[in-house]
Amino acid sequence: MSPRLQLLLESLQKLLRRGAHGPVRRLLHKARPADVAVVMRFLDARHHGRVFDLLPDDETRAETLSELDPHLLPDLIEGRTVAELAGLLKLMGGDDAADILAELPDALRQELLDALKPHEAEEVEDLLGYDEETAGGIMSPDFFALPEVYTAEQAIKALQAADEDDIEMAYYVYAINEHGHLVGVVSLRALVIHPPKTPLTEIMVSDVISAKVDTDQEEVARIAARYNLLAVPVVDAGNHLVGIVTIDDVIDVIREEATEDILKMAGADETAFEGYSVVKNVRTRAPWLFATWLGGLAASVLIGAFEAQLEARVALAAFIPIVLGMGGNVGTQTATIMVRGLATGRVSRDIGSRYFMRETGIGAMLGILYGALLAGYSVVRYGGGGETVQLALTVGLSILTSMTAAATVGSATPLLFDRLNIDPAVATGPVVTTTVDILGILVYFLTAAAFLGGL
Amino acid sequence: MSPRLQLLLESLQKLLRRGAHGPVRRLLHKARPADVAVVMRFLDARHHGRVFDLLPDDETRAETLSELDPHLLPDLIEGRTVAELAGLLKLMGGDDAADILAELPDALRQELLDALKPHEAEEVEDLLGYDEETAGGIMSPDFFALPEVYTAEQAIKALQAADEDDIEMAYYVYAINEHGHLVGVVSLRALVIHPPKTPLTEIMVSDVISAKVDTDQEEVARIAARYNLLAVPVVDAGNHLVGIVTIDDVIDVIREEATEDILKMAGADETAFEGYSVVKNVRTRAPWLFATWLGGLAASVLIGAFEAQLEARVALAAFIPIVLGMGGNVGTQTATIMVRGLATGRVSRDIGSRYFMRETGIGAMLGILYGALLAGYSVVRYGGGGETVQLALTVGLSILTSMTAAATVGSATPLLFDRLNIDPAVATGPVVTTTVDILGILVYFLTAAAFLGGL
Repeated sequence: MSPRLQLLLESLQKLLRRGAHGPVRRLLHKARPADVAVVMRFLDARHHGRVFDLLPDDETRAETLSELDPHLLPDLIEGRTVAELAGLLKLMGGDDAADILAELPDALRQELLDALKPHEAEEVEDLLGYDEETAGGIMSPDFFALPEVYTAEQAIKALQAADEDDIEMAYYVYAINEHGHLVGVVSLRALVIHPPKTPLTEIMVSDVISAKVDTDQEEVARIAARYNLLAVPVVDAGNHLVGIVTIDDVIDVIREEATEDILKMAGADETAFEGYSVVKNVRTRAPWLFATWLGGLAASVLIGAFEAQLEARVALAAFIPIVLGMGGNVGTQTATIMVRGLATGRVSRDIGSRYFMRETGIGAMLGILYGALLAGYSVVRYGGGGETVQLALTVGLSILTSMTAAATVGSATPLLFDRLNIDPAVATGPVVTTTVDILGILVYFLTAAAFLGGL
Repeated sequence: MSPRLQLLLESLQKLLRRGAHGPVRRLLHKARPADVAVVMRFLDARHHGRVFDLLPDDETRAETLSELDPHLLPDLIEGRTVAELAGLLKLMGGDDAADILAELPDALRQELLDALKPHEAEEVEDLLGYDEETAGGIMSPDFFALPEVYTAEQAIKALQAADEDDIEMAYYVYAINEHGHLVGVVSLRALVIHPPKTPLTEIMVSDVISAKVDTDQEEVARIAARYNLLAVPVVDAGNHLVGIVTIDDVIDVIREEATEDILKMAGADETAFEGYSVVKNVRTRAPWLFATWLGGLAASVLIGAFEAQLEARVALAAFIPIVLGMGGNVGTQTATIMVRGLATGRVSRDIGSRYFMRETGIGAMLGILYGALLAGYSVVRYGGGGETVQLALTVGLSILTSMTAAATVGSATPLLFDRLNIDPAVATGPVVTTTVDILGILVYFLTAAAFLGGL
């Protein structure tokens, strides 16, 4: 947290504890809504409503609500009237209002929609109809479109006449033809630097990059990032312009998707940052651990099958964790690289096989390195006995084989899931660790059987 | 990869293999530079120079270079003259030119700087002086600043007169006073919608959010994202405006930092996406695995110390992987959540202790769940013998204790590293897995000793 936010947080905490509402009000008057929204995360839940009440005006309240983490919403709206909440929704962009309504219980959402003016309600209801994770779900309906036959001067006049609150971050003017089809885009800068009489058709870029309402939000973010756009226009099936996704929402998508991917790979989700409930978190994290548990069980059954061998040479047990650990970790490394590469477009299916080859090579080289190291160690540790060389070969080759196999599994699994259109981030973790554990035990005891006998 | 990029890639590959340069040229003429830069990643290295040559003009070449993954640079500049390269650098924004120069060998960089005009070279050299990961390192020197005494009309005239190539994404006009201090910011939209005679001082926002040249790039990205800015102005120690960080660079920072964090937690880095060299990747990944190796070795020494116990009851060996695996995975889950939470500001030091408590609680609950399951299994598997209850208690309590301890270690370690100003993403992985392995073995064999004797 920046020192500035830290200071705001600490001052608020101190003043709220003392119940010094006057000073809190003055502090909030100078604070930015985005900062207040962040600070809310760290304030005691019992102070949330109070802080919200003490914000200078409804404008600020609406802006703070738009920036707020959704799970804090219930604290803030508790005890407020429908009229009050509807008033706040009206002050927001249509997309922000829809996002908030989507979080509310059905009954309250319906009451609020009834309380909005028909055209506002319709706009918001349209947005609520799209899948949350698509262009339609994150777009704003407040864009600025003009007939392509307008001149630069007419366009500037239209901008001046428009209600400022109704246009979200208008840095582009979209040109539409008589059918409402998106035919061009003009930057505000182009409007300003060209002679007033120039028609839009002459200064607009007609090869417009756009998204469809059902384009995945990640793809929209990639488009904005790749072509350095400040907004991505969104068209419906009939190529009518229906909204824009602005760069601030693109940034949110990129951050959220990255966080989601990281958490998914560890079998967790956003619940992890939504308060301190143990039970809620246990529920989201237990399934992934159950996969680990089943894998561990399979491993124990397998080891049980080699019990005679273990009884003959109990020293073998000591190396189980290192054989499994090295395989598991190189498998996780490889899987992480592939999952992230697929998510960012650095790895594609076409070149997947090259990565697969490379990773297997890396696994083998690392296996030689750490296998040799462990073989050396085992000579030092258990040397002198009659089976020194055999034990060294067993542990060394087991590490080599299990690390190579782990790299193979770790790189093949995400590619396979990607081809099957299963999100590699979700499925990869448990599959790789479990497979690698079982392979590791098999390899280890079979190698031991080959060199030391006892099967 | 989007279908459009996929098509471009496949067509290029086919045509290049046939040596059909005419069609390649026509294809490249219609392609966007950003797309060509992405496609380069997936083309054979031997085709890179050819594709670059066949781009329509130097403008396009310069733009493609700016968007290119840095590790592909050597393929493209090989065999080109200093004059040719300097010509391309002149066509880029100062920040892009500096980024490319930073990647080149010292001798070539110096030759290129000598070939640029003195003022261009000076601008670029200034940028090269800043740490790559700071606001100074990513800012563009091509911003648009005007005296605060100008009117809206004068500002628009100045914009019209400016060389378009010299202003990077000018959506804000910065107002400076007679000392060159940044005193306000005016959006292009404000210029357009206010009467021409309005002075900038009346329409500008004077509480400007800015970064310092040495502000960390992650913090700059957070500022832009939090306040929905299209550009963050950068000031030097004397509050003089020296550059701007534009939103496209902010997006790059957010994506890179997320990728970096994910890879770091698995002990890898960006090398993973820079070609297919096994040796280079082994070098970056070996150290992290060495920590695992040492941990595994410590585990084997520990198990060796309990050899007598294992000899008496070889069935104990079968549960080693599951005890370590469950601890390891819950530790990784917890650590991942904490590391990502700290990186995104969702977890701060202030509330760290609440997360620590929660995670320990989650570990304990999950431990009870999976401990009971395993105890149940062990009764089914090994039941009937005289020590059924003791074995069940041993495995059940070991899982409970090791999962609780793992959650504690997994949440405390990132918080501790954060306090010590060590990047939690780097250090957490090996420390947590190693500690958890060792704790797991200790807990397991000590519990076994308590219930089953044999120490």
